[in-house]
Amino acid sequence: MVIGGDAAGMSAASQARRLKDPDALEIVAFERGHHASYSACGIPYWVGGDVDGPDQLVARTPEEHRARQIDLRMRTEVTEIDVAGGRVRSRRLPDGQEVWTGYDKLVIATGARPVRPPLPGIDAPGVHGVQTLDDGQALLDTLRQTGGRRAVVVGAGYIGVEMAEALLRRDYQVTLLNRAPEPMTTLDPDMGELVHEAVTGLGVQLVDEAEVTEIRTDEQGRARAVVTSDAEYPADVVVLGIGVRPETALAEAAGLPLGDSGGLLTDQAMRVRGHSDIWAGGDCVEVLDLVAGRQRHVPLGTHANKQGQVIGTNVGGGYATFPGVVGTAVSKVCDLEIARTGLLEAQAREVGFQFVTVRVESTSRAGYFPGAASMTVKMLAERRTGRLLGTQIVGREGAGKRVDVAAVALTAGMTVEQMTALDLGYAPPFSPVWDPVLVAARKATRAVRADAAG
Amino acid sequence: MVIGGDAAGMSAASQARRLKDPDALEIVAFERGHHASYSACGIPYWVGGDVDGPDQLVARTPEEHRARQIDLRMRTEVTEIDVAGGRVRSRRLPDGQEVWTGYDKLVIATGARPVRPPLPGIDAPGVHGVQTLDDGQALLDTLRQTGGRRAVVVGAGYIGVEMAEALLRRDYQVTLLNRAPEPMTTLDPDMGELVHEAVTGLGVQLVDEAEVTEIRTDEQGRARAVVTSDAEYPADVVVLGIGVRPETALAEAAGLPLGDSGGLLTDQAMRVRGHSDIWAGGDCVEVLDLVAGRQRHVPLGTHANKQGQVIGTNVGGGYATFPGVVGTAVSKVCDLEIARTGLLEAQAREVGFQFVTVRVESTSRAGYFPGAASMTVKMLAERRTGRLLGTQIVGREGAGKRVDVAAVALTAGMTVEQMTALDLGYAPPFSPVWDPVLVAARKATRAVRADAAG
Repeated sequence: MVIGGDAAGMSAASQARRLKDPDALEIVAFERGHHASYSACGIPYWVGGDVDGPDQLVARTPEEHRARQIDLRMRTEVTEIDVAGGRVRSRRLPDGQEVWTGYDKLVIATGARPVRPPLPGIDAPGVHGVQTLDDGQALLDTLRQTGGRRAVVVGAGYIGVEMAEALLRRDYQVTLLNRAPEPMTTLDPDMGELVHEAVTGLGVQLVDEAEVTEIRTDEQGRARAVVTSDAEYPADVVVLGIGVRPETALAEAAGLPLGDSGGLLTDQAMRVRGHSDIWAGGDCVEVLDLVAGRQRHVPLGTHANKQGQVIGTNVGGGYATFPGVVGTAVSKVCDLEIARTGLLEAQAREVGFQFVTVRVESTSRAGYFPGAASMTVKMLAERRTGRLLGTQIVGREGAGKRVDVAAVALTAGMTVEQMTALDLGYAPPFSPVWDPVLVAARKATRAVRADAAG
Repeated sequence: MVIGGDAAGMSAASQARRLKDPDALEIVAFERGHHASYSACGIPYWVGGDVDGPDQLVARTPEEHRARQIDLRMRTEVTEIDVAGGRVRSRRLPDGQEVWTGYDKLVIATGARPVRPPLPGIDAPGVHGVQTLDDGQALLDTLRQTGGRRAVVVGAGYIGVEMAEALLRRDYQVTLLNRAPEPMTTLDPDMGELVHEAVTGLGVQLVDEAEVTEIRTDEQGRARAVVTSDAEYPADVVVLGIGVRPETALAEAAGLPLGDSGGLLTDQAMRVRGHSDIWAGGDCVEVLDLVAGRQRHVPLGTHANKQGQVIGTNVGGGYATFPGVVGTAVSKVCDLEIARTGLLEAQAREVGFQFVTVRVESTSRAGYFPGAASMTVKMLAERRTGRLLGTQIVGREGAGKRVDVAAVALTAGMTVEQMTALDLGYAPPFSPVWDPVLVAARKATRAVRADAAG
């Protein structure tokens, strides 16, 4: 039995079905929304008009799942897990009918919910999260019905920045309210500054260090402005991109173990700790950060898919593990590519690392080659050992996916000096003769040596 | 003292100078050509008109080297190395003057020379290699002087294919003669077939299994046609892209150790084996193929630069090593990106590996995202252990540099199953939720398991 019909849940169901016939394994899945198996990451591009939706974002329809003998029950919300009794209670949303259903093996894939700080007006019509396809549809409906052209996006993480761009493409005047000193707190502030320039260059009004205190509504109760401690920003639509929290109320009520972030705690095989017949994956779990050596909440579709695959393999009688993450993320604002992996400075400090940092400017192609675009690479290496701790890249075309090299090096525990010898692809249309990641690794190697000598 | 003023030699000189003042280290470098420190890899783009040349391709001019107290003697050919006497004899090409110069430390960076099979007419005017900037200039001069528009390129490796495209851009009718059954023998034939389609799609006449027997000349002795065992191809210009051999005649005459390919054999620090005061790097040396466990000749500018850096560090009193290569290469034909790392099937077999192979089709971005382009990834994994042995990728934008992930995984000795857990950057504009390399790793994992079970 699977609770939650998106990436992790349906990947698990599909993989288990691949390994076991319906005779050997019956699969029931509950999804409270109107859609299953979709790409939530695609929502900003749907809103922006780059992608038709919502069907384009659906990897597999409920009918396709059912054709593969997965009993997917849409618009059905699980309201209670009875761990001792091995059963869950569910409610059909259209008619409110409730039933208890027993399970031998349970997969919890309840995802995440957008953070909604307890502010006046936060639940008013015209205030939208963008976590599910239903959220995306609701936002598009509002945009269609709204006369005005003023949008305020709260939160300047990657979702906020992507939504700001999407609304700009819909010809909105966009204000982006950012609590931190620079946008993209998934980057160090000095790298976030590069994103600041790009975002304002697009025509977005970016307000840093903005503390939202209220969503002001009109007499009909509709959101009309976002108020901060300093100012008031008129809004015909408000989008929340503040981040998400694990959706684990059900699990908590059932007494399942949660971590500091509120995410479920699992073992290597993605079983909920202490429960041999319950698995959990996707945005509702914490994962091991292999660099920090700590559990963290890292809600990303790519992890959800991998974890679902691991769960499905194990539930289907095979063996697979999810060892953890190194914190890789890429995103894009217009033609600016933003990437990070490993630890930021503050994160490295928090877990007790001492380190050197370097920053280099390089280009995506040989300097003389047409289309060569500049790129900034920042690298953190541990003092003494020289072990790579993190890499951040901001640049134009060809910048973002270069972070994968650092992600693999982190996984392998390489030092920055070992990285300088990496045999990366070189040809003038693809890279300078020293790839930008290698240029950073060379500089980091010198910094580690100088630190050790000094 | 440095013999050879291109990538390896001048990187070594520059790095040594960075570490040691002129008072502590005198540096003399000899270069027989008209240019130093240039990107030979850029020549096809210069010929094709994408890049202005030759100055654009020069990373540092002789004057800039001299300003940094490197005594770079251009148009000066070294004609003999006297190892016992610690001196070299050089000849100034303009006036033929010869002198002996003593050295304490010698760096050999004599590069490679294009293969010129001993065919009738191979040395005729109108037949061009493209190894040095001087070669590039000579070819451009021929193109300018030639009335006709028919070009024949001999050899369909990456240089041959790049030159075919370059000549096409100059409005030549291009015939590409290929000895093998498919172009790009740096790929397995089934992947080379994808390149075949792309090259013929461009309008190049690609002739596979063509054995060249003669370059036919006119009464002035100029090349006029390329003759194969089957046919004759009229040519106003002939370009040789057959490959290169280490330029080690000097080293051989001096009794220095050469490998099977004729390249110099060095140790981890790039010292010529058995000689504590002689280093060698770049296209004139063999390198350790870390996957095959064998020495190979891998002439690539990126290795030359790294080796030069290592040599310069060691000559300058520091410590650095060049551990070897994993066989990464990327190239481009029009918008087709071609990449490989590790071993091909034939190479893996030759060194005694048994392996499984898989091939997958995927896309560069999320399938629903505009501009998502298809990509074919082939992967070789060792039987039983599942260790990654090689990866080949052919696709459009965003395909080529993905090979770097496999290159780092090879360096780290990862299995394909370990690779399935890699935390690679995901967002719809950059990748499907399962990166194509991970899709291949998953399929390879299943193939390894099936093989072990079968």
